[in-house]
Amino acid sequence: MPAMKAEKEPIIALLTDFGTEDGYVGALKGRLLSLVPFARLVDVSHRIPPFNVRAGAFCLANAFPYFPAHSIFLVVVDPGVGTNRRGLVLKAGQWWFVGPDNGVFTLVWKDYPGTAFRIREERLAGPVSATFHGRDVFAPLAAKIALGQAEPFLEPTHPPESFWTDPRPLTESSWQVEVLHIDRFGNVIFNLHRSQWEAWGSPQPLKLEVGALLVQGPLATFGQVAEGQCLLNWDSSGYLQLACNRASAAQKLNLKPGQKLKLKQ
Amino acid sequence: MPAMKAEKEPIIALLTDFGTEDGYVGALKGRLLSLVPFARLVDVSHRIPPFNVRAGAFCLANAFPYFPAHSIFLVVVDPGVGTNRRGLVLKAGQWWFVGPDNGVFTLVWKDYPGTAFRIREERLAGPVSATFHGRDVFAPLAAKIALGQAEPFLEPTHPPESFWTDPRPLTESSWQVEVLHIDRFGNVIFNLHRSQWEAWGSPQPLKLEVGALLVQGPLATFGQVAEGQCLLNWDSSGYLQLACNRASAAQKLNLKPGQKLKLKQ
Amino acid sequence: MPAMKAEKEPIIALLTDFGTEDGYVGALKGRLLSLVPFARLVDVSHRIPPFNVRAGAFCLANAFPYFPAHSIFLVVVDPGVGTNRRGLVLKAGQWWFVGPDNGVFTLVWKDYPGTAFRIREERLAGPVSATFHGRDVFAPLAAKIALGQAEPFLEPTHPPESFWTDPRPLTESSWQVEVLHIDRFGNVIFNLHRSQWEAWGSPQPLKLEVGALLVQGPLATFGQVAEGQCLLNWDSSGYLQLACNRASAAQKLNLKPGQKLKLKQ
Repeated sequence: MPAMKAEKEPIIALLTDFGTEDGYVGALKGRLLSLVPFARLVDVSHRIPPFNVRAGAFCLANAFPYFPAHSIFLVVVDPGVGTNRRGLVLKAGQWWFVGPDNGVFTLVWKDYPGTAFRIREERLAGPVSATFHGRDVFAPLAAKIALGQAEPFLEPTHPPESFWTDPRPLTESSWQVEVLHIDRFGNVIFNLHRSQWEAWGSPQPLKLEVGALLVQGPLATFGQVAEGQCLLNWDSSGYLQLACNRASAAQKLNLKPGQKLKLKQ
Repeated sequence: MPAMKAEKEPIIALLTDFGTEDGYVGALKGRLLSLVPFARLVDVSHRIPPFNVRAGAFCLANAFPYFPAHSIFLVVVDPGVGTNRRGLVLKAGQWWFVGPDNGVFTLVWKDYPGTAFRIREERLAGPVSATFHGRDVFAPLAAKIALGQAEPFLEPTHPPESFWTDPRPLTESSWQVEVLHIDRFGNVIFNLHRSQWEAWGSPQPLKLEVGALLVQGPLATFGQVAEGQCLLNWDSSGYLQLACNRASAAQKLNLKPGQKLKLKQ
Repeated sequence: MPAMKAEKEPIIALLTDFGTEDGYVGALKGRLLSLVPFARLVDVSHRIPPFNVRAGAFCLANAFPYFPAHSIFLVVVDPGVGTNRRGLVLKAGQWWFVGPDNGVFTLVWKDYPGTAFRIREERLAGPVSATFHGRDVFAPLAAKIALGQAEPFLEPTHPPESFWTDPRPLTESSWQVEVLHIDRFGNVIFNLHRSQWEAWGSPQPLKLEVGALLVQGPLATFGQVAEGQCLLNWDSSGYLQLACNRASAAQKLNLKPGQKLKLKQ
């Protein structure tokens, strides 16, 4: 069990697919502030597309490495609420993570494999709604971590679910890569991290086959191609990204999460 | 007049239909922080559909019961700004509410009838814009409550406007219910609270007539019906909800706020 | 160089076009909290339309005048990231502003011309991503201002870029005005401030030619015209606004930013 102690003004970072049209985010924040009056709540996102676990995972990966040590991430993208999917607490790197076990912690665990706990829901006081574990299970657990009182509610468990697959080598100088995520600007992000590419010896240039088109890179900035033209670069988290200068790459090239493409030197 | 005193780091929770594309939310926050430097501002929602008082009321109902005592809710969904609608301060339950008298506090008052005050705008210093009472009237009042200095600006008044109607009994075992709200996931919420249903003796099963379709419940979780199928359950605030497993009930069944349907045992 | 000292709990107000679907806002906040543990982060907007510098400028103008002295505005609407556009720090009025030099500070500088500094990126420690100066340049600078340690990273420079043009007199009692911005409610905002109009002697009534239509004002409230009818008034920041009662003026009259119209007495 990792050391647990109360922080003076603990940071609880919120990441959900609730949207903010309804009051669900408010309920979450209200409950957290009732349980931890001095918590510092930080909105990471409430606009993950509903039930889109991969988008949640990517959003989290973009943000968590920049937070101070001991920050607690409350992650509620939970299509399986009400089924028997586990509720998890992870200590990974210097941060805590609380949420459902459905792959949303894939990119955290890939880089910071740590200690995984199952939440012992049966020990929580108060009614647990069947449809809102964010408020009734995950927020109380985040609060208990913030207060240094989570231990009785946790038991060690096996690692969290993961959707990650490494790029598949096709030849010595070509690989099959997969579309992991499309961001709001239409940039297309792949399952290849810069660190992996460097382990391959930083092959240059990379060419991605998109139908009859070959997109090249990695380039340093959008400005290196004409407006509307596309390139490969490393996104702000270090993943391979297909982007078009002031245009949506996903729309232009009709790409969707899960698609597999050939990358070659 | 309820006791008023300054909190050390008062919570002011914001709920508006401003959106965040413009700077109106920023103006509100800036003014609050200028007046109450140690306020803890909490965003509940700024994405209430413009002028949609009922959506605002429902969002508020979902959130306020979970907040700590003394929290102040600044609610600005205000289609009547610039007309002679009253500005209100409510002490209801353990919370304060500030905003226009247009029904947006319906669900607060239904559960926590308390003390209602009219805001004496004429006593406020500084210019009052005709179109932005959120910044020029309601935010200053919320600040005065936070500082324990609101009394001179309030006078007792009659209860706030309400759009609530109880379900109408049709026979001993059937009722007319009304669509109150559609949430972002397309769940349809009715004017029947679980507590009312329990007062009826918890009749089981409930069947809702939607055209030729009978939807049954209340069930505990979405997982109890096949993907795309619909059910009745209690939403996270305890209101009767028509939901479809991983689909929008409102779209699927073409339902809108204000529609009346027959519910029977 | 203006006096710099650390505030106890500095306010850093965030205004970006990142949206909150991705984790970019989270990365920004995480980095700020890592650098300035006691910062009070305030979301002004993350929903500026992507790359829309004018919308960002207007949003900022709506919000900054209401913030407490010493507040720091971190503004990242940055279509030119990766090109050689300057990074700026402005001390204007009683506030600090950090962001790219692309016109986004036009309306700040118009009302509060102050002191402009170029950010000496080359002095920043740590890698600077080519595509995310918000996180790697502007957030660290905002943090250094908050900590009173920005001086070594700044050098005096010429005033920021501006898209402002004054209304052009056509005759003694008519002017050419330009659409500056369309807000979320479809209100159309022009390059004429109330203070300028007062300097003209407050000519009454004003009539705006929109095709064959004459829209009149300035009126005090939307309620002074019938539902669907249009009027001129002063927006909440004091700019001339064309608005329609409970309807979108921009849609109804087919107006877009940059269009020039004739205003006459």
